[in-house]
Amino acid sequence: MPVNLPPLDPAQLHPVPGVTLGIGSAGVKTPGRKDVLVMVLTEGTRAAGVFTQNRFCAAPVRLCREFLGGDKAIRALVVNTGNANAGTGQDGENRARTICAALAEKMGLATEQVLPFSTGVILEPLPHEKIIAALPGAIADLKADNWAAAASAIMTTDTAPKAASKQVVIGGKTVTITGISKGAGMIHPNMATMLGYMATDAAISQSLLQKMVKYAADRSFNSITVDGDTSTNDSFILIATGQAGNTEIAAADSADFITLRDAVTEIAQVLAKAIIRDGEGATKFMTINVEGGKTREECKAVGYAIGRSPLIKTAFFASDPNLGRILCAIGYSGVENLDVNTLEVWLDDVLVARDGGRVASYREEDGQRVMKKEEITITVKLNRGQENATVWTCDFSYDYVKINADYRS
Amino acid sequence: MPVNLPPLDPAQLHPVPGVTLGIGSAGVKTPGRKDVLVMVLTEGTRAAGVFTQNRFCAAPVRLCREFLGGDKAIRALVVNTGNANAGTGQDGENRARTICAALAEKMGLATEQVLPFSTGVILEPLPHEKIIAALPGAIADLKADNWAAAASAIMTTDTAPKAASKQVVIGGKTVTITGISKGAGMIHPNMATMLGYMATDAAISQSLLQKMVKYAADRSFNSITVDGDTSTNDSFILIATGQAGNTEIAAADSADFITLRDAVTEIAQVLAKAIIRDGEGATKFMTINVEGGKTREECKAVGYAIGRSPLIKTAFFASDPNLGRILCAIGYSGVENLDVNTLEVWLDDVLVARDGGRVASYREEDGQRVMKKEEITITVKLNRGQENATVWTCDFSYDYVKINADYRS
Repeated sequence: MPVNLPPLDPAQLHPVPGVTLGIGSAGVKTPGRKDVLVMVLTEGTRAAGVFTQNRFCAAPVRLCREFLGGDKAIRALVVNTGNANAGTGQDGENRARTICAALAEKMGLATEQVLPFSTGVILEPLPHEKIIAALPGAIADLKADNWAAAASAIMTTDTAPKAASKQVVIGGKTVTITGISKGAGMIHPNMATMLGYMATDAAISQSLLQKMVKYAADRSFNSITVDGDTSTNDSFILIATGQAGNTEIAAADSADFITLRDAVTEIAQVLAKAIIRDGEGATKFMTINVEGGKTREECKAVGYAIGRSPLIKTAFFASDPNLGRILCAIGYSGVENLDVNTLEVWLDDVLVARDGGRVASYREEDGQRVMKKEEITITVKLNRGQENATVWTCDFSYDYVKINADYRS
Repeated sequence: MPVNLPPLDPAQLHPVPGVTLGIGSAGVKTPGRKDVLVMVLTEGTRAAGVFTQNRFCAAPVRLCREFLGGDKAIRALVVNTGNANAGTGQDGENRARTICAALAEKMGLATEQVLPFSTGVILEPLPHEKIIAALPGAIADLKADNWAAAASAIMTTDTAPKAASKQVVIGGKTVTITGISKGAGMIHPNMATMLGYMATDAAISQSLLQKMVKYAADRSFNSITVDGDTSTNDSFILIATGQAGNTEIAAADSADFITLRDAVTEIAQVLAKAIIRDGEGATKFMTINVEGGKTREECKAVGYAIGRSPLIKTAFFASDPNLGRILCAIGYSGVENLDVNTLEVWLDDVLVARDGGRVASYREEDGQRVMKKEEITITVKLNRGQENATVWTCDFSYDYVKINADYRS
């Protein structure tokens, strides 16, 4: 069961003018499963993406980079679950390209206008014929209010679909932002999460869209960890259809850019946190705030050291305030010349450590009270600079082992 | 149950002339438990050590660094379990110094001639009076053939004592090397393991002893991981009493140095591997050989990426040849300009991947056959240089979670 992830209400997801979504069933891994998503984007749409930094990046990720870097506008996306098409060499790339070509042919597009995505098991050949056979069904299903069904279609070990939506006013026009994400394990994104798609009808220049997707990813999908494993397939795509009627956003210091950027980042954070709430075996949701660092990078390093430590994650699972493990992780996080005597560690509103050790005011029952909660905030005040970062993670339970010992079978 | 760790046979542990060991009972955590070890070293002994790089290093580690860097010869060691004296600030350092002073006073030494060590829970005040009260009992117990009892005395979550011994001939003299180690969790040493002590009666210069301890640690304790957590207390001490009668080893290129260095490294590897065999919840022992790298560091980075991945470790626990996870870890290991199309991945004698994907000859039943074994070798051939490294690790089971959710209670 996810941690405080409310059931998805399809009525809360605003359609994005210029985007339609259709679901198909290819039976990639499980016969009858709805495992193919097609997104079609209106003419004039701009797209930008960030992708895994894993050197073993999947074939579809390599094609996405190629197509986004080309001169043809992206007009469709095709996603399958059940097979990641990763660790599949040149053959995997050929198969992904064949799927793009098949969808392009049906839609009157060029192959390079279709971005492919896959998620699932690594090192298995992708059954591309099954996916191509499912395209007509997905195309027949295309509609604007299909975001909730799309969120379900891209799930793998996820136990719940993940989507979020928001409207803001930009240049006197109502602008919509809606997004979906998936992921529960192999989550320690280095550019983006397993899969995240967000669309807005705002008009915005290509260079600012690219800037925005990086900004939002850094503060959302690139700030979460379940198990420290950076996936081969992480992809986060931001789409702007330009249908809202606002004057095109073209200046990075404009109020319009900041309004849209912050709304996009907010939705990205909701989607990224949903992945953690549904983290494999998760029973608790932890927010790690690291404040007062010299750089944002060192704050993130401390946050990730805490967030990926199996010792800390099992202690949270057990509600055991074995808080020395947090100090230990801060100590090995790699921050240069870190002075352990000036930093502070807080558990919610309880000050735990200062001056290199436990504070005299700390009482075990206070730590215990916080540890028993489902949502816990760890705050580390480095007290050496002005930068901050937040990392979100979950605990580590028997079920994480169970899920990952069973995943393929 | 440890993985293929034979029961300790005290008769196999050669006493080291110049070293006596005594065990005491302080009841630091558990009343009546033998939890204090004293080692006394004869006049003329040299000692060298490597310690955790964790910035939150424990108070005894800070004192060890200070005392080893001073001008007084080290003549005794005192170790307690049940409390790590880490995250205890200046007060922790004062308490450790008080213990050293108490032992020094009883042995006619200076405080700075006694190295202190602690292992156990972090962030709790060390009950130093209990340890001081246990010193007379430990001193009364001092004897040369007490290595097996010493190995038991330093255990925490270990399920078996760890010790090894060997004799070599150097300059016509029989030289003895005997060592003990402890550790089962919070194991991802960055200089050394939780605790390792090795003594030889060889005569060797101080500078070469220091060189040797680093060499051996790099190829043993610094090549293992259980959970990726670098402890606050890692310490590895190499003692040379000079009682063997060999001509003092003074040249790094001498045959004598190499003979002793290789024997010390061999024993250090046995001790380090014993920690993995007894890794918390371990059911399998994995050797990760990374060959053909440009540098030893990049080989180690690949080895550690594989060795600390929870996804890989749970797949090994399940005997599931979900080998794409290995490619994934290689891909995010951070090796610069890694060409995934030229590397190879082997599972024992089975070639799994080449040319960026699974080889056609690979059959699931071959992978399954290897995965079912208790001892498995993963070989990654990077095919881009001449350097190699080996990392040892264990799998990740339900019991790891259980042990670490229960450790303090």
